[in-house]
Amino acid sequence: MSEPVRIGLLGRGTVGGAFAELLAERAGAVEAATGRRPEISGVLTRSDGDFGAILERSDLIVELIGGTDPARSYVLDALRAGRPVVTANKQLLAQHGDELFGVAREAGVQLRFEAAVAGVIPIVRTIQESFGVTEVSKVFGIVNGTTNFILSEMAASGAAYEEALARAQELGYAEADPSDDVNGADAAAKMAILARLAFHTPVTLSEVAYEGIETIQPDDLAYAKELGLSLKLLGVAERREGGISVRVFPCFLYSGHPLSPVEGPFNAVMVEAPAITEVTMSGPGAGGVQTASAVLGDIVSILAGEAPVHETREELPIVTDVTSSFYLHLEVADRPGVLAQIARVLGDNEISVKSVVQRGIGDDARLVMVVHECLESRFKAAMDEIARLDFLRSAPRAIRVIEEEFV
Amino acid sequence: MSEPVRIGLLGRGTVGGAFAELLAERAGAVEAATGRRPEISGVLTRSDGDFGAILERSDLIVELIGGTDPARSYVLDALRAGRPVVTANKQLLAQHGDELFGVAREAGVQLRFEAAVAGVIPIVRTIQESFGVTEVSKVFGIVNGTTNFILSEMAASGAAYEEALARAQELGYAEADPSDDVNGADAAAKMAILARLAFHTPVTLSEVAYEGIETIQPDDLAYAKELGLSLKLLGVAERREGGISVRVFPCFLYSGHPLSPVEGPFNAVMVEAPAITEVTMSGPGAGGVQTASAVLGDIVSILAGEAPVHETREELPIVTDVTSSFYLHLEVADRPGVLAQIARVLGDNEISVKSVVQRGIGDDARLVMVVHECLESRFKAAMDEIARLDFLRSAPRAIRVIEEEFV
Repeated sequence: MSEPVRIGLLGRGTVGGAFAELLAERAGAVEAATGRRPEISGVLTRSDGDFGAILERSDLIVELIGGTDPARSYVLDALRAGRPVVTANKQLLAQHGDELFGVAREAGVQLRFEAAVAGVIPIVRTIQESFGVTEVSKVFGIVNGTTNFILSEMAASGAAYEEALARAQELGYAEADPSDDVNGADAAAKMAILARLAFHTPVTLSEVAYEGIETIQPDDLAYAKELGLSLKLLGVAERREGGISVRVFPCFLYSGHPLSPVEGPFNAVMVEAPAITEVTMSGPGAGGVQTASAVLGDIVSILAGEAPVHETREELPIVTDVTSSFYLHLEVADRPGVLAQIARVLGDNEISVKSVVQRGIGDDARLVMVVHECLESRFKAAMDEIARLDFLRSAPRAIRVIEEEFV
Repeated sequence: MSEPVRIGLLGRGTVGGAFAELLAERAGAVEAATGRRPEISGVLTRSDGDFGAILERSDLIVELIGGTDPARSYVLDALRAGRPVVTANKQLLAQHGDELFGVAREAGVQLRFEAAVAGVIPIVRTIQESFGVTEVSKVFGIVNGTTNFILSEMAASGAAYEEALARAQELGYAEADPSDDVNGADAAAKMAILARLAFHTPVTLSEVAYEGIETIQPDDLAYAKELGLSLKLLGVAERREGGISVRVFPCFLYSGHPLSPVEGPFNAVMVEAPAITEVTMSGPGAGGVQTASAVLGDIVSILAGEAPVHETREELPIVTDVTSSFYLHLEVADRPGVLAQIARVLGDNEISVKSVVQRGIGDDARLVMVVHECLESRFKAAMDEIARLDFLRSAPRAIRVIEEEFV
């Protein structure tokens, strides 16, 4: 009989616990597939266990403890000691990717992290391996299940943001402190990782511009529905003007867009490139056993053979001023000449209008418009100017739109 | 400078030509990713080139010549000579999988075939690697773009099968002789491969039951639309009663099903397992450069490191009599008691009715019904009995339905 693979497990929360259970259940299948039977040789929790001792008696480290500290030093120590590491820690990779991949390369051991982005959807493997030499033009999608659940709930029931968040918390889709999910920071960390892999460029979290969903109003969703639009929190990493743009923002999609039917806590990611057209992958973005499955897949790959560690090979600049299309919601005084003045401001900034709807009368009058793609700096300038017009009853509200219409 | 990787290319049709072009374009990226620059060391076509000489001066063989003969002997010779092989040949793998994988294992060289199933969608890698030790319960989807285009066209325009096929041929989505696509044989070969990988069982093409779309009538699509159903040619491989069932058949899906929005020549595959819930992947199922991209991804994986050759580890029996839900179209005489007699026959066979719609009057009278899941042998018995009823004006028409409804 061959030697077992001794796995040191860091963390025993929801995912850690599910992983230990799944590993026990599938140990026979792992042995059949790789010739080696996995067993857990030690578990470190925040309150219990000695990392050095666990490392000593492990062949491979699974890091599910979360956070960057002390996770970072555990992973670095493990790699330096020649132990392959599997982690689900998006913050760690998004903030310290260069250091971690550098040490893994030096030590000649694998560092795998499928579970860090979009749960069980094999997007990391797909971008790194299947499309590793493809000239990817864009990777984008719904990479945070909490916000997608909240937006689905608001759209379906007309609920306010706070109500929908409370419902997500009840169902376990949002944490007690949901800040990192709802403000876009979680999605930003995932996009930093995907951008790094897709564009072979050392992107870190601090370079990702992000916006959350906290200010979305139910009536934005209601008007958008009439226009055939659905709202998603999108992460977008794309080539733009010789560099790349990596951002997270709420965005309207026309019906027929492949991401538009993705509802509830599901995630979905699209990859675009001239040589592949587009590939879309969707599935559960979180969940204990689902995330544990992604970890297990990485372990099997490590046991099955060698694979090179991720290495950047380009230094593409981050482009910050990009073009976007926008939905625009203006609460205005109900009097003649209002539309003309707004149209003039937009025109002066070279922004052209795609559609406009006038709604309500008197104190409820509002203009809902969609403008074609324009440079975001110009749009912002126009917004500043519009905000100063005396007939505005409240600050203008804008949400990005992906203009592409599908049949 | 490191040695180049010499690639022997068998076949220079649409995919072969696109591959040669893509390889030249991405040679620098391959070198950056793997340390070795690829170059084509020889091309064999049906009319030109000597296989032995090309093998001699190649480090890796790409088989895009198609068909099983002489492709089979080329691939076997290459593997025996210690050359890794990348192939897009679904018929070869579906018919001779055991022999090919056996020889690759003996020779200790990789045999990769991402392009053989669902074009550029990385479903082979996902099932083999990400879900290699997952207890997969079902793999199913749209794995033939020609038939999906024809069905989309029929549904959108009300066109007859022959018209839609002609349109597909005009646009290059169907070949001059479309038999293998429209009768389900092409999809069956792909499902034999996916079933083998998902269930680790030696499935061959001859064990896959398949039906095509040649007999689909425009009015089936019209009625189905009213019921909120869309029609797809599905390949389904699933665990059933201690064995597996692998089949290809036209099937109605309720709106909201993840496969229901997949239109035109696109493919989409879903994988279900308790530990992953479900993952859906969609993208172009064919096309020269897209298929060539899948081939290139396999080459990069071979250059990047070792990976074990596929090996079956189970011997699950093929279950042939499974349960299904059906749509049923009956042209009947317009007189009292007809529905009662049909209901009696169904009831006698323990088949329960989910919905029924009576349409038309006089010579145009018909019953359109959907029945709940039942054993297919019982359904067939009921159909035989119904066909003998004197008030039937033509043979009953039945199409399978996936009952699952989504919100």
